[in-house]
Amino acid sequence: MLGARGGWRVLRYCSSSLPKEQRVPAARLRVREALGAREAAGEVKVQGWVRSIRSQKEVLFLHINDGSSLESLQVVADPSLECRDLTFGSAVEVQGKLVKSPHKMQNMELQAEAIHVVGPCDTLSFPFKVKERHPLEYVRQFPHLRCRSNALGALLRIRSEATAAIHSFFQDNGYVHIHTPIITSNDCEGAGELFQIETSHEAKESAEKNHFFNVPTFLTVSGQLHLEVMAGAFTRVFTFGPTFRAENSQSRRHLAEFYMVEAELSFTESLQDIMQVMEDLFKTATSTVFSRCPRDVELFHKYVAPAQKGRLEQMLKNKFVTISYNEAVEILKQASQTFTFKPEWGCDLQTEHEKYLVKHCGEVPVFVINYPYDLKPFYMRDNEDGPQQTVAAVDLLVPGIGELCGGSLREERLPFLESRLQRLGLTDAYQWYLDLRKFGSVPHGGFGMGFERYLQYILGVDNIKDVIPFPRFPHSCLL
Amino acid sequence: MLGARGGWRVLRYCSSSLPKEQRVPAARLRVREALGAREAAGEVKVQGWVRSIRSQKEVLFLHINDGSSLESLQVVADPSLECRDLTFGSAVEVQGKLVKSPHKMQNMELQAEAIHVVGPCDTLSFPFKVKERHPLEYVRQFPHLRCRSNALGALLRIRSEATAAIHSFFQDNGYVHIHTPIITSNDCEGAGELFQIETSHEAKESAEKNHFFNVPTFLTVSGQLHLEVMAGAFTRVFTFGPTFRAENSQSRRHLAEFYMVEAELSFTESLQDIMQVMEDLFKTATSTVFSRCPRDVELFHKYVAPAQKGRLEQMLKNKFVTISYNEAVEILKQASQTFTFKPEWGCDLQTEHEKYLVKHCGEVPVFVINYPYDLKPFYMRDNEDGPQQTVAAVDLLVPGIGELCGGSLREERLPFLESRLQRLGLTDAYQWYLDLRKFGSVPHGGFGMGFERYLQYILGVDNIKDVIPFPRFPHSCLL
Repeated sequence: MLGARGGWRVLRYCSSSLPKEQRVPAARLRVREALGAREAAGEVKVQGWVRSIRSQKEVLFLHINDGSSLESLQVVADPSLECRDLTFGSAVEVQGKLVKSPHKMQNMELQAEAIHVVGPCDTLSFPFKVKERHPLEYVRQFPHLRCRSNALGALLRIRSEATAAIHSFFQDNGYVHIHTPIITSNDCEGAGELFQIETSHEAKESAEKNHFFNVPTFLTVSGQLHLEVMAGAFTRVFTFGPTFRAENSQSRRHLAEFYMVEAELSFTESLQDIMQVMEDLFKTATSTVFSRCPRDVELFHKYVAPAQKGRLEQMLKNKFVTISYNEAVEILKQASQTFTFKPEWGCDLQTEHEKYLVKHCGEVPVFVINYPYDLKPFYMRDNEDGPQQTVAAVDLLVPGIGELCGGSLREERLPFLESRLQRLGLTDAYQWYLDLRKFGSVPHGGFGMGFERYLQYILGVDNIKDVIPFPRFPHSCLL
Repeated sequence: MLGARGGWRVLRYCSSSLPKEQRVPAARLRVREALGAREAAGEVKVQGWVRSIRSQKEVLFLHINDGSSLESLQVVADPSLECRDLTFGSAVEVQGKLVKSPHKMQNMELQAEAIHVVGPCDTLSFPFKVKERHPLEYVRQFPHLRCRSNALGALLRIRSEATAAIHSFFQDNGYVHIHTPIITSNDCEGAGELFQIETSHEAKESAEKNHFFNVPTFLTVSGQLHLEVMAGAFTRVFTFGPTFRAENSQSRRHLAEFYMVEAELSFTESLQDIMQVMEDLFKTATSTVFSRCPRDVELFHKYVAPAQKGRLEQMLKNKFVTISYNEAVEILKQASQTFTFKPEWGCDLQTEHEKYLVKHCGEVPVFVINYPYDLKPFYMRDNEDGPQQTVAAVDLLVPGIGELCGGSLREERLPFLESRLQRLGLTDAYQWYLDLRKFGSVPHGGFGMGFERYLQYILGVDNIKDVIPFPRFPHSCLL
């Protein structure tokens, strides 16, 4: 064991199984690069972890994966290169010749000349077994190891590509990226329970309440108000960062810490401007992800949610449906289905209602617009359409998930905002927000999209814990 | 006033100063697009905020800025289009013809046919005055408005481009982006005071200590340990997110909330592999930023730090200098300068020492490598070079800033790590970290770079509060 653990150093400083005269500096290739090579390459070196090992009388087959792709590279070697530490899960460095594979299943394979076990694997206690497809519930128990499973490997590559695609979408459309504050003293909209912050020193003597920032501070629930400040200078801005709700995250639908994409636009003409960006973002990001990691996506569409692929392709082709809140309530009232919560104008749409509406519209994404004034936070723009007064708000509902995005036009008119804040007793707290309406205030609006819900939707993943890098409960050691 | 505030609606639904027959749907252009146009365009519409206004007998000149670039677009109009609300700071929509400008200073200008004031500006209480160059200290007092100043506008566009450049660097080099947890129960390395988290409900009854997550939880100080998990599956990973220290941020060098770029690589051969990535990242990101927003960068290199440009261009051309900690101590001991802290092998390098070393090497970036074992956290790789035992750690020092990046090889050898954690009494807390060394453990390492310090360095900005979107103190309203 010790010898193998020190193998790396040995490799660097002295031995190789090749005679000295044959040694040429080998190009180091990632597995993805090796698999994608157009033609046979010279001497190469590939490093990774053994995903399978099959020893025959004449030949030894290995599959090496380094996380650069779902597919592993097949290594063909002489059985004499096998050793005790060369097992499933061990880390190896293989030197050899990259050649066209005679097998249909793969493009290239590596003819090994030397195999070095860089790090052995204690296969008995390793929770994953060779050639077994472990269910997501099983791998979720090993937050520090599950990224080595095919499913989580694919998921995290997709998450990385989706992150990049979202950034690119906004950059390509002239948005400035703003890092909105994480620690904040505003609760934005009173949306759910907050996490409060103190220094660990204060926590010990919390009776004294010496707030580090002079005021009680919380983890952000949304960067919207800060983004509005910036939209007043850059016209188009976005942020993409962590947001927090102190909700019990034992559920499969909620997380205490999750990522949100938020954008704000100035000089809007109507709510339609916001909806257009939501739809464009969704479609562009999704197409990009599908084209950049097709094999990773395929894994989910094959084994996790088999019907999802066709549904998404249809969705990418068609315009999203739009209905008003008024229409939604009428649809719900006329439904043959009995709801736990009776649909009534002025009440929030419940999950059961959202599901019904999406089904009613043909299991496609649906914008619901113009919600009752009294249901929505102070900053949403008054439609002045009484007696059933509404605000220019929009939610995007998608099949299987419910609300994916929420947005609105913001109230840019000083007198409207002033009277609303006064009624709520919030004038002092939001003096700076009122201030923005005095200096070149323009019609504007924005939206937020839950990133984990987005991933759940495009991949058909049921439990939200399977689309984040580190699940929390019950593994607090890794928090 | 009211009429002007409602102007937008009016514009959409009825009036225009053009006779009906001349109305054609005008293309909406950002200022940046208008300025970059190659030739005269037809009818266009530009929206933005008035940055200057000059009324002559025959002609009215406006400069319109929408945050898409530092430069404003010159608008030439008939004086009859002037109105009372058309002032510095007001928001306007200008329709007209985009033509080649007869003036040398600009490429294109807009011949206005209609000007609509979308949102007037209360110029008396607006803190910025036309054509005045307000110092950074002054604009910092107005966290919700300072983004409308040239300096902060430029800074935030640069910050946005730098963010994109850093993401691209890693993606182009095959790194997977990981969102490491913000709320965590590990303190990583005991680096400074932590922020503790509880639900706002718990904060009120904190004597009871019902932790939401069952264990005390904090805001992350580094994503390194989580990244190491991922490097064991993807070989190359990075993260770029907020990190926190409960340090008093009244200083010009520290923030309670700041951004950190962190990367981890598996299959390293030596510390040099880590240093190479640090140097490549720094140079690639900086060149990209300089080429993507030259005018914004020029503003800083012209008015804020005049000598910075030449120094950075030199730096981009040359290889970074490397010295060992041992050499550093020798250099300091032989210095004619008297230090407050006497340089001694085994002691941390102080700011005064870092400054001297950077100066000694010619005011260029300097890698200092191989620090004393006892100075560094448990996870750094033992160089086994006693009696003056060191670990494979590296700091990158840069002129004017001090430490910009810090990194190391991580201890991948189970017995070394086990005995070190045992001595520290941390075996139980880091069982999962030890676990990683049992299943295909490979030599690996990584580093972190403070993003705000990076921006300070490339732009020559003295106060760290001027490179973040929202300064905190004393404006807690906007926290």
